[in-house]
Amino acid sequence: MKPNPKYQAYIDRLKKIADLGFAEAVLSWDQQTYLPKNGSQFRGQQMATLKTLAHEYFVDPKFGTLLKELAEEASLTEDQRINVKLTLKDYTRKQKYPQSFVEEQATVCAQAFGAWQEARGKNRFDTYRPFLEKIVDLKKRETQLVGYERHPYEALMEDYEPGLTVKKVDEVFAGIRSNLFPFFKELSKKPKPRHDFLTRQFPKDKQWAFSERSIGQIGYDFNAGRADFAPHPFCTTFGPGDTRITIRYNEHHFSQMFFAAVHEAGHALYEQGIPLAQEYGTPIGQAVSLAFHESQSRFWENNIARSQAYWKGNFGALKHEFPQNFADVTTDEFYRGINIVEPSFIRVEADELSYHAHIYIRYLVEKTLIEGQIKVEDLPAFWNDRYEEYLGIRPKTDAEGCLQDVHWSYGAFGYFPTYSLGSFYAAQLFAKMKSSFENLDKDIETGNFAPVLQWLRENVHKYGRKYNSSELLKRATGEELNVEHFMNYAKKKYGGVYGL
Amino acid sequence: MKPNPKYQAYIDRLKKIADLGFAEAVLSWDQQTYLPKNGSQFRGQQMATLKTLAHEYFVDPKFGTLLKELAEEASLTEDQRINVKLTLKDYTRKQKYPQSFVEEQATVCAQAFGAWQEARGKNRFDTYRPFLEKIVDLKKRETQLVGYERHPYEALMEDYEPGLTVKKVDEVFAGIRSNLFPFFKELSKKPKPRHDFLTRQFPKDKQWAFSERSIGQIGYDFNAGRADFAPHPFCTTFGPGDTRITIRYNEHHFSQMFFAAVHEAGHALYEQGIPLAQEYGTPIGQAVSLAFHESQSRFWENNIARSQAYWKGNFGALKHEFPQNFADVTTDEFYRGINIVEPSFIRVEADELSYHAHIYIRYLVEKTLIEGQIKVEDLPAFWNDRYEEYLGIRPKTDAEGCLQDVHWSYGAFGYFPTYSLGSFYAAQLFAKMKSSFENLDKDIETGNFAPVLQWLRENVHKYGRKYNSSELLKRATGEELNVEHFMNYAKKKYGGVYGL
Repeated sequence: MKPNPKYQAYIDRLKKIADLGFAEAVLSWDQQTYLPKNGSQFRGQQMATLKTLAHEYFVDPKFGTLLKELAEEASLTEDQRINVKLTLKDYTRKQKYPQSFVEEQATVCAQAFGAWQEARGKNRFDTYRPFLEKIVDLKKRETQLVGYERHPYEALMEDYEPGLTVKKVDEVFAGIRSNLFPFFKELSKKPKPRHDFLTRQFPKDKQWAFSERSIGQIGYDFNAGRADFAPHPFCTTFGPGDTRITIRYNEHHFSQMFFAAVHEAGHALYEQGIPLAQEYGTPIGQAVSLAFHESQSRFWENNIARSQAYWKGNFGALKHEFPQNFADVTTDEFYRGINIVEPSFIRVEADELSYHAHIYIRYLVEKTLIEGQIKVEDLPAFWNDRYEEYLGIRPKTDAEGCLQDVHWSYGAFGYFPTYSLGSFYAAQLFAKMKSSFENLDKDIETGNFAPVLQWLRENVHKYGRKYNSSELLKRATGEELNVEHFMNYAKKKYGGVYGL
Repeated sequence: MKPNPKYQAYIDRLKKIADLGFAEAVLSWDQQTYLPKNGSQFRGQQMATLKTLAHEYFVDPKFGTLLKELAEEASLTEDQRINVKLTLKDYTRKQKYPQSFVEEQATVCAQAFGAWQEARGKNRFDTYRPFLEKIVDLKKRETQLVGYERHPYEALMEDYEPGLTVKKVDEVFAGIRSNLFPFFKELSKKPKPRHDFLTRQFPKDKQWAFSERSIGQIGYDFNAGRADFAPHPFCTTFGPGDTRITIRYNEHHFSQMFFAAVHEAGHALYEQGIPLAQEYGTPIGQAVSLAFHESQSRFWENNIARSQAYWKGNFGALKHEFPQNFADVTTDEFYRGINIVEPSFIRVEADELSYHAHIYIRYLVEKTLIEGQIKVEDLPAFWNDRYEEYLGIRPKTDAEGCLQDVHWSYGAFGYFPTYSLGSFYAAQLFAKMKSSFENLDKDIETGNFAPVLQWLRENVHKYGRKYNSSELLKRATGEELNVEHFMNYAKKKYGGVYGL
């Protein structure tokens, strides 16, 4: 059947916008992997040009008219109607940003990023403060520009987790505060499992050989992607059949490459499961939300690759790669060593449980700043008080406190909650899988990951943005987000690790 | 001084077009170096989108109006006037191509490329013939579209070597035919110098270690570029401070990586010497012509890195890298072994002298096809007859005959002559340098390449397109193109190699 000509015009426009977006992704990947020192000067400008052009094609009023006409078109299929509805929603939102605001934000963020890097290096919050004040001011104005029904912070979260409410986040974290926080504090008082073997000498090539085999085993397709070294691990898609990851290494710490590689491969498995080719550039050809993206990476990293079953099956192979390092280590010791719980200052180094206190604090900071309840100048004290309250430790410097994350200098407010939601979604998907599979632990132990991936493909990946994230979670697991699943998983797993 | 606001608008437009062009170069480089197998499907489309957008911004009639106004502007500096004049010239030429012609050419070439690959693989000219016929037809129409004063082939050469005439090429090759062709035939009858040592075992990493040091020594700046493996060696620029090369290796042949790396580094040294940052996207920020580009690569590859002085200085280092391979080889034997002259069928494997017979034949083929003197169906016989006439050998198959080059399937007619001109320009520059430097051979032998590079920077690189290639050659060497310099160089060098 020939598509409706208006729908075809819509597809052609999205294709061009996607081409520009993917091209920008290639330039960004190259910037972080291979760009020579002197080339950095003009790369930002080149990426900005591609971004601006894509934006212009998207907010073009002629495209808006086409979308509004298509929204009334009776002849479209269900998927076509969903695509048009979502694009019109995106269009309506993006239309609300005047060009002057977009440019101001780009300029402020570019300056703020440099100021943040310097401030963190020198541990001087006061030099970063005026830039962060400008960003908070911009973000407040943004909430007015795009509008909101209940809480201004929701206008910002909408970019990362559409439909998410402050009420929902508060409710979720209320459960986490009263159940998870006391639990990880209790664990951190117990004797720490042995973990000396994690910081022995691990040659880079052997780390990658083991990581490469492992992510191949869970289903990452190296014909449709590749891995390159970069200062920070990330996952990026350049189009159908090309979803890459980056890795890094520390020859004196086993965990840095392996768990990050599995994490990024989890993101990549999601992208490789979206119908990117058939739905090139359309909403159904995109990931549903950041929290769902994060649920896929955390699922493979934590629920799978930090599980007892996984290492029952894989510790032999690891020992084979590093015979000397693990000669004196049992499978059980290794499993406990990679699952130590201990409150610490730096989010990206946090364990699987106390991590959520880091996120909760950032959520409180952002929400309270946007509400105007605190000022940027109050941030360091507010931050440190919360760390003391929720993690039981007080940062001694702002570098290990409120200066540690890059997000705000990019203007990313409303992003942090998706990190925790990702873990909670993952636990809920994992619980559903446990009850649906005959013996999930056995599959994990024997490396039979095909049914697991197949389940995710069928219940999550293939839909793209067809359903919003709460709908998708409900379809996949039969219920709304329920943090009980995460708490049950945490208590069972860590009760075992710590022999409670 | 603030630039003229119209000139600033002109610069802004060129900047955007350059951003798109450089982005396309990144995607193309990635396609040839790192693209995973399944990603190839959509990469062509993404590159085509960037190319089309850049073209649209360039041929936009509003830009044309601005250019025409600027051409009348009295307040511009000399360089600004030159930029505007050249851009207006480019605009006028590109304007002559109707969108339908551009699209037809893109479609025909895409099909022809696939057909060519298959035909070459199966050695079946007849399956490629209809596609080549379409391309020749397109090229004939193109000569009508853009127009010409003297010969239709000049309309095509204009894209690669602006201002080049058929009369000039005929004149140059007349000298080459009567002097060079008999000379290399004479040499090829002499006993062949020893060269067994070139096909010993050369581990890839050691080849690269030696090549890397060598191209660093001639001045290639690894802070402003890098080298990656690709099936074919090439040089590409992504903006100021980022000119990369690609390399390939054959562990059983020393020459494949080294001389190609020096060749590509020669191209890169040119790009690194153009004022790309100050003149981002303008004509003065671009290379003057393909022949001049080729002169830079051939200069470093042939005049320098295949010279006796070079190996007097570097053979020790090469021996140090491969002590076993060269234990029984003297510097003189090595120098003679890398300079063997022997007519052969494949252009890209030809020696420095008989190479020009390959080019001459292609020039004749193209010119005669465009004139309509022969038909595409006559091509194999025409080709084979010319090989017999000029090289004294007759191809047994079309795969080693008229199917060997990719150029025509890309629609590149008029490109080949620049390969020979590049060598002739290089020899003329080299002769000028010899007479200007106190002791050029000594500089080459001692690795003192800074003055050589400085001379090229000052006399060639820094001008970009400011002067056209014949003007630039005259400024740099004091005379028009004179193939005597190449003949003198060839006779002296190869007389020595063959002990005449």
